[in-house]
Amino acid sequence: MILEGIVTTTNIDGTVNISPMGPSVDSEIELFELRPFQTSRTYQNLKRTRCGVLHVVDDVMLIAQGAVNRWQQKPELVPALEIDGHRIDKACQAYEFQVTFFDDSSERTMIKCKTVKAHLGRRFFGFNRAKHAVLEAAILATRVDFLPMEEIQTKFSELRTIVDKTGCTQEHAAFELLDSYVCEFAK
Amino acid sequence: MILEGIVTTTNIDGTVNISPMGPSVDSEIELFELRPFQTSRTYQNLKRTRCGVLHVVDDVMLIAQGAVNRWQQKPELVPALEIDGHRIDKACQAYEFQVTFFDDSSERTMIKCKTVKAHLGRRFFGFNRAKHAVLEAAILATRVDFLPMEEIQTKFSELRTIVDKTGCTQEHAAFELLDSYVCEFAK
Repeated sequence: MILEGIVTTTNIDGTVNISPMGPSVDSEIELFELRPFQTSRTYQNLKRTRCGVLHVVDDVMLIAQGAVNRWQQKPELVPALEIDGHRIDKACQAYEFQVTFFDDSSERTMIKCKTVKAHLGRRFFGFNRAKHAVLEAAILATRVDFLPMEEIQTKFSELRTIVDKTGCTQEHAAFELLDSYVCEFAK
Repeated sequence: MILEGIVTTTNIDGTVNISPMGPSVDSEIELFELRPFQTSRTYQNLKRTRCGVLHVVDDVMLIAQGAVNRWQQKPELVPALEIDGHRIDKACQAYEFQVTFFDDSSERTMIKCKTVKAHLGRRFFGFNRAKHAVLEAAILATRVDFLPMEEIQTKFSELRTIVDKTGCTQEHAAFELLDSYVCEFAK
């Protein structure tokens, strides 16, 4: 199953990189595979440090900010216990991992990871249409370089209806952030 | 926040009714409001018994089957502890509730509910695009009576792409069930 989560890795200057990622996970999130582009910061950090933290989150503001790398508020971080890195304090779940295998033979490297420490925080909210509409909008926002702008804006308009109907403050703020990003790009 | 969950209520013959519902919930799911149509079984049962169980689930086959009321496999039920009813054994969370207030003045009754017993099961999977695509398909399938069939089928085609890319056996089976239902209706 593809889990849309967040991965933290450590940059060369010691700061923390926070990126939405969609690893393929097993049911217990003991083993999983990441497929970042080789141009991504996550790839570069994992290649160098061979460890990071995968998070299950329901905070779509975090996903939206990470997707377009525009931070109004960075999440609180705490040091990881078993690896040299940091985890997001208020995630639903956090899985400290070590890389066990790299396959660099294609543009999107396949990176096999093994969880070495799991942290269970508060429970995931459950199904909410607005949260998922923001997630879809975040994915579209990362594709402004190659998707037709008209297609993106049509989908944003449909997604906005769902966010308006079923979301709360966080979902609205996250959607607006993504909408501004896409509108600026369209200019 | 609107939680897309499942509500079980007790029918007049003692059997259990299982319906997807989208209550407005507080962060701890201690208090929530249901808004069923007065023609629905859930409404009729709650009016008579004044209790039920709200579930947080990530099992989209359950949601799909419940949405169109076509059951290939009913979930395992266990007796509730604090109310006269049954809960779904493998839900992520189950909240036994009592009705505290009815407002029957509009077509969709507002029913205030209070949790009297919470059960915490396994954790919700997290964000997965296929699961949410099935949820959107299930909502569309309940609207075949009044949405244009062409619109439904166009959306189903978009949703199928997401299910194919990011789902697993359960998501595929649930989507096929909904697709068959909609196709039969279109004939």
